[in-house]
Amino acid sequence: MEPARRDEPTDGPRAYGDDRYVYGINPVLELLRGKPGQIDRLSIQEQGLKESIAGEIFSRASAHGIRVDRVDRVRLDGMAPKSVHQGVVAEVRQFDYSTLEQILAAAKMHGRPGLIVMLDGIQDPMNLGAIIRSAHALGADGIVIAKDRAAAVTGVVAKASAGATAHTKIARVTNLARALEELKAAGYWSVAAEPSGEETLWSARLDGPITIVVGAEGAGVRRGILEHCDYLVRIPMLGQVASLNASVSAAVLLAEVMRRRQPKPSASSAE
Amino acid sequence: MEPARRDEPTDGPRAYGDDRYVYGINPVLELLRGKPGQIDRLSIQEQGLKESIAGEIFSRASAHGIRVDRVDRVRLDGMAPKSVHQGVVAEVRQFDYSTLEQILAAAKMHGRPGLIVMLDGIQDPMNLGAIIRSAHALGADGIVIAKDRAAAVTGVVAKASAGATAHTKIARVTNLARALEELKAAGYWSVAAEPSGEETLWSARLDGPITIVVGAEGAGVRRGILEHCDYLVRIPMLGQVASLNASVSAAVLLAEVMRRRQPKPSASSAE
Repeated sequence: MEPARRDEPTDGPRAYGDDRYVYGINPVLELLRGKPGQIDRLSIQEQGLKESIAGEIFSRASAHGIRVDRVDRVRLDGMAPKSVHQGVVAEVRQFDYSTLEQILAAAKMHGRPGLIVMLDGIQDPMNLGAIIRSAHALGADGIVIAKDRAAAVTGVVAKASAGATAHTKIARVTNLARALEELKAAGYWSVAAEPSGEETLWSARLDGPITIVVGAEGAGVRRGILEHCDYLVRIPMLGQVASLNASVSAAVLLAEVMRRRQPKPSASSAE
Repeated sequence: MEPARRDEPTDGPRAYGDDRYVYGINPVLELLRGKPGQIDRLSIQEQGLKESIAGEIFSRASAHGIRVDRVDRVRLDGMAPKSVHQGVVAEVRQFDYSTLEQILAAAKMHGRPGLIVMLDGIQDPMNLGAIIRSAHALGADGIVIAKDRAAAVTGVVAKASAGATAHTKIARVTNLARALEELKAAGYWSVAAEPSGEETLWSARLDGPITIVVGAEGAGVRRGILEHCDYLVRIPMLGQVASLNASVSAAVLLAEVMRRRQPKPSASSAE
């Protein structure tokens, strides 16, 4: 397999290796101008960088409290392909994923039964962000996403989540089915949101620790994952072209779990 | 007040006057290629239009059953600013708004109590489309939007609604407060989704015909509208940066109304 070509500069920020670095004058300046909060540290070449460029980098970095190191070319070459970094490299913040174990441990820290959302094949970053936002607001302890064929948590996702990514434990796993089995072993029921489900959301059992499994729009939850689910529930719909966005489905399910977990109003209380 | 400048051709479709016309060679060809269903009728100049362009227009229009009239320049000048139509004008379908009365009449045709969604200040077409989609799927009889300072139902909205705009009655009114009073006179309770609401979604009374009032994200429902609402309900949230997208809030409220309206499982039924 041929390695991807990395020898041509592009307009937008590019990642090298593990996505930790953005490099090249324009990509880094754009990042500094538009999303300085994503930058952990800047490295610029000791010599040879145009004064006007170095000047803008220092002044913007200083305004946002970002550290700038003047390093030698060899150091920069270790962070980014040497033909394209142009003497400027930004180390960007990676999303700090949690492990499944960390999510489970956090879920034990409060009085409620655990509530986890597993996403199967959500590829649209806006949709992923929207789901993270709703899941966080509606009390989910964490979110499980797949490493492959699924959107990762990027700046776009963070923005779409209205900041919720910073407060939500998200585990990125190699194998969703195995993760589901691990969750089951930890006492979690797994409930797939599935339009073909036999039980409605309102009749389904939703007590105890639960993993809610949500698939991508159209494709739904894949069969290989559905087989590991304890039940399939559907949200009853009435319209002629009735379908719900994945993030809306997730929110409606989460809200129903939350409703069931509310303390029951005392039967003797005055009306 | 100066009229908007209309003397320069642009890349995308533009509207003239009341949004009925899209004009210029590229905008019309793009519309024909991408969304022919939005075109009611095409008018092209009798003479002077390049044969290759006229050819593509005729063949695509014919494939989609769209009528093409060859008209004189004066006719075209009446539909679009003469310097920019380039001899090609498409008459596009306008969204077929309903009246409040039509929504109320339709709501009487089924056995359930009426359910109407009123939107206050939703300006993002994607959000409007998402709400229409959820409202349609979750059994709303119609949607009420404001004529001013709010997104109208356009092609973008139709697409974001996943086609639900074609099956949903939408009334566009001058005065939302007055519309709310008309709905009240027709027996509708009005319930605003409002994070500061004293009652939770689950404790609030939601029986009988209902108008659910949803405001724009951030701004919420305006005070002048809230004053006309019977109660304010909030969706309880747990997260640290807890907030829900307007379309998600609307869906969670609608789902709860739907749940309450489900036939109760018989108390004597075996478990």
